Amino acid sequence: MNEEPLVNPEVVGMVGDWKGYVEAKLGFRNHWYPVRFSKELGEGQLEVVQLLGEKLLIKRIEGKVYAMRDRCLHRGVPLSRKPDCYTKDTITCWYHGYTYRFQTGELVNILAVPDSRLIGRRKIVTYPVEEAQGLIFVFLGDEDQVHPLKNDVPPGFLDENRMVLGKHRVVNSNWRLGAENGFDALHIFIHKDTTLRHYRTFNFPIGHTPKPGAVQLVEDADGPKGVMDDFAQHDAVWDGVIDGEVVVSGPRSEKVSGTSASVGTSVWLPGVLMVESFPTVGLTQYEWYVPLDESTHLYVQTIGKPVESEADRITFANDFEAIWKPHGLDGFNGDDIWAREVTEPFYADDFGWVDEMLCEPDETILQWRRLASRHGRGIQQKSDLR
Amino acid sequence: MNEEPLVNPEVVGMVGDWKGYVEAKLGFRNHWYPVRFSKELGEGQLEVVQLLGEKLLIKRIEGKVYAMRDRCLHRGVPLSRKPDCYTKDTITCWYHGYTYRFQTGELVNILAVPDSRLIGRRKIVTYPVEEAQGLIFVFLGDEDQVHPLKNDVPPGFLDENRMVLGKHRVVNSNWRLGAENGFDALHIFIHKDTTLRHYRTFNFPIGHTPKPGAVQLVEDADGPKGVMDDFAQHDAVWDGVIDGEVVVSGPRSEKVSGTSASVGTSVWLPGVLMVESFPTVGLTQYEWYVPLDESTHLYVQTIGKPVESEADRITFANDFEAIWKPHGLDGFNGDDIWAREVTEPFYADDFGWVDEMLCEPDETILQWRRLASRHGRGIQQKSDLR
Amino acid sequence: MNEEPLVNPEVVGMVGDWKGYVEAKLGFRNHWYPVRFSKELGEGQLEVVQLLGEKLLIKRIEGKVYAMRDRCLHRGVPLSRKPDCYTKDTITCWYHGYTYRFQTGELVNILAVPDSRLIGRRKIVTYPVEEAQGLIFVFLGDEDQVHPLKNDVPPGFLDENRMVLGKHRVVNSNWRLGAENGFDALHIFIHKDTTLRHYRTFNFPIGHTPKPGAVQLVEDADGPKGVMDDFAQHDAVWDGVIDGEVVVSGPRSEKVSGTSASVGTSVWLPGVLMVESFPTVGLTQYEWYVPLDESTHLYVQTIGKPVESEADRITFANDFEAIWKPHGLDGFNGDDIWAREVTEPFYADDFGWVDEMLCEPDETILQWRRLASRHGRGIQQKSDLR
Repeated sequence: MNEEPLVNPEVVGMVGDWKGYVEAKLGFRNHWYPVRFSKELGEGQLEVVQLLGEKLLIKRIEGKVYAMRDRCLHRGVPLSRKPDCYTKDTITCWYHGYTYRFQTGELVNILAVPDSRLIGRRKIVTYPVEEAQGLIFVFLGDEDQVHPLKNDVPPGFLDENRMVLGKHRVVNSNWRLGAENGFDALHIFIHKDTTLRHYRTFNFPIGHTPKPGAVQLVEDADGPKGVMDDFAQHDAVWDGVIDGEVVVSGPRSEKVSGTSASVGTSVWLPGVLMVESFPTVGLTQYEWYVPLDESTHLYVQTIGKPVESEADRITFANDFEAIWKPHGLDGFNGDDIWAREVTEPFYADDFGWVDEMLCEPDETILQWRRLASRHGRGIQQKSDLR
Repeated sequence: MNEEPLVNPEVVGMVGDWKGYVEAKLGFRNHWYPVRFSKELGEGQLEVVQLLGEKLLIKRIEGKVYAMRDRCLHRGVPLSRKPDCYTKDTITCWYHGYTYRFQTGELVNILAVPDSRLIGRRKIVTYPVEEAQGLIFVFLGDEDQVHPLKNDVPPGFLDENRMVLGKHRVVNSNWRLGAENGFDALHIFIHKDTTLRHYRTFNFPIGHTPKPGAVQLVEDADGPKGVMDDFAQHDAVWDGVIDGEVVVSGPRSEKVSGTSASVGTSVWLPGVLMVESFPTVGLTQYEWYVPLDESTHLYVQTIGKPVESEADRITFANDFEAIWKPHGLDGFNGDDIWAREVTEPFYADDFGWVDEMLCEPDETILQWRRLASRHGRGIQQKSDLR
Repeated sequence: MNEEPLVNPEVVGMVGDWKGYVEAKLGFRNHWYPVRFSKELGEGQLEVVQLLGEKLLIKRIEGKVYAMRDRCLHRGVPLSRKPDCYTKDTITCWYHGYTYRFQTGELVNILAVPDSRLIGRRKIVTYPVEEAQGLIFVFLGDEDQVHPLKNDVPPGFLDENRMVLGKHRVVNSNWRLGAENGFDALHIFIHKDTTLRHYRTFNFPIGHTPKPGAVQLVEDADGPKGVMDDFAQHDAVWDGVIDGEVVVSGPRSEKVSGTSASVGTSVWLPGVLMVESFPTVGLTQYEWYVPLDESTHLYVQTIGKPVESEADRITFANDFEAIWKPHGLDGFNGDDIWAREVTEPFYADDFGWVDEMLCEPDETILQWRRLASRHGRGIQQKSDLR
């Protein structure tokens, strides 16, 4: 039954200054989210994507991408079940001929009822679309709430000379467990066997905790909102001790002598992580945890590099395929994926948000939850899906 | 939990004069429904069928078919799990020996407790059964509500010289989406590629809408209740136009010149469609959308033809196998089946009934919803399943 | 949502003096339950078991078995997903290094945050463990409620010279349907074709009902609580009659002439059955219906025999493998298993407890339900799982 609340009200009543975050089980509305890479949608191509619980059609028409709800106004069927595109900028419902224009959502005809008074007076939901850095972004929200894309991506991501490569996959956990896993300074413990260490120019500790001043909030009125955690101001722990004995140590490559001190991690609304100098010095990893529904998210993983020449581009593309994709996005982040998926059951009924037992360094995660609650532009509700 | 209502009360409160129809998610109680073809149940044979959420046993004993709830009174187990029929007109529960007579439902013995005071004093639920035109009909309802079968089938269906052939299959949608798909004059749009057109003696438009007077309600006190839609009084649309261009046209066979004007469609309680002159002139299609549970129905598809002689019967049987079954019941109606199944999710949480956006010709569907609400003899509830 | 009650309150309100039993859908808390055979857990071995809806880790350390909740305090992940046991008596969470001592549950370190104030101040839930007669028993309950194991097993089970052999498997029904199936004197009807009859020294009737005085309650303050049913004081029914004809008779072996008169059956809290002189004279079957969750139980089947010598032990072990396991635990009890599984749906929404129609001999089952309601030491709730 739809009247069952999206989030357990008992739990919502128990959290304090990050209530909005707990309520945002389906994500924050009125933000920009990447849904596909630009190269995945050729001219005239139609795809179905999911976003904050909504099914959308995206289509590229004369170069520009449009997004429309994939559900006919008439009887609620998915237009994509048998897409009838009789003209390049319309789609006609296979069931009774309701015809919509991609650019506006306008009901331009009902083929079998050409004189219906509905024609020209009804619209299907459409959303703004922008392309940047090789990604297709959709603004999932209300017309009067549209903000510039630059306010929903990490600082510098849109820089002109930045080349961005990546991949995406579906992860079976709520999007917030993705964001927290990525931003979490402690979870490096699960990466202690990563093959990526052979390709890095610095070493991993088994943990590190922020010293005062390491964490900084970014809340400028006209800009992205995020929490930055500077690893240079962390205390690293290299050895794990139980009952007085060292039982485990952070992996060190013989080829390198530095530490991870130069890396900074930050998380931004509506759920995107920036890891500087990662997976190696000179690169920056940007990754999105895009809410698909309550229990899955699209993990959009990208690596960016400033490039000056075509030779730079070719070198980066080669390194990406040979090293950073297999050892970073697949290998290193593969551990993150299963960690999120096994965390999901504890939070699925919402009680995890009050039953968890955070420790001191998790304060950075609490900062993120509070900031998201303050600046999220809207909370997607079940009623938004209807 | 069973206290969760069958239909969302918020939705029930929002619909007006067809509230009963929205409530009848499990079907209308106190009506006759076909469950199998007669030839599927030989003498002494036992089958399990489902109807309006209830599991029933049907058995043919000395030619006559009986129907009994497939759930022992004692501990609620299905008798069919291991049917112990020690005499031809009883079934004994495999678990503790509770023994019921098919004709009456009476608990005639408990084999292991032959002196129990329950014996002869308790009854399992049984339902009246009738056979007609090769179908086994069960009256799913209360003893004091039994009406004649003729009031629950389309007019003429029981005519003596009518030969009826058909098939049935399970469709994954609520029964009402079946009934509305069948009766819907507009949905012909999905049949524009049907192979059936090669065997018809008239053509399909892409749509047609009723002119005033086309729709007629039948509500005689002692007779079937239904809505008739006379296609002869429809305006046909042959061409679909978008932005001033014809983009699609109704299929026309070169072999024929007529239109579908002679066809009339009607829908009758408790959910049966009659399509005259279909799949071709001289035949009539009758089809039932029998509620199995909230989200599935048995689609009982039949074609009837008046026959005068054994030669007529053989010809019709041959044509049925060679043409009408493959191109009509399988091909043409196969499109209807997937249409219903992809419509199901929108209505599954009941909000579809208020979120849909009907157009003018859908008035005929509203007539059906209102008529069903007025004349349905009862609404099957979750408590009826206990 | 977790606020949905474990048991339908409408049903709880309808039952009288065995309300506690209806509420104990997840089992009775504060009792001892077998989870594995001792031989299944070698030195240093770690296993995951389920009990009353909780996931537990059990580990054998220097001979002794310990039980701990398999869920990290920090973010709720299962420790077993990737068990990091750096020392023999601790386990470290793979995600962030929270480290617990098996003997006490104490959080002894957080590897990545060695100076956290949580260390030494938090505990994960642990449960007392005892081994007896080759079984590992866990006390699932609160520290201040621990009772001696001897009060939770049938009288005599712990006798020193008793040799116990057995097996276990998961059954897809609530644990109470297991207990009632086992204790139910009438259900012998389903065993009428058992191959076990060829190995028994007495015969099966098709049913038997207790005479006055057959049933005896055992409720001593310091001892197990149970209901005993003495089959010697039963009226046996050998022939099943329908409409005056004998239609089925209890199986009799030509090799034996006695009846089952010497057998007594009893059921004990928290859900364990003792069947004397079964599967044959000289043996006793003990079987547990251990709640795993609402709809499954672990069926722990054992047969005990007093042994005096090594020769006795070898003979019993051989007979167990050759006869009693295949024909008794697998064959005879295999019928019990499917009976429970097909009974489950009727009780799954709790209404079965009020919709069932018991007969006179089922009074012994009602005695059990009332006794369990009086003496169960606690009812496992959904909130206990958090």
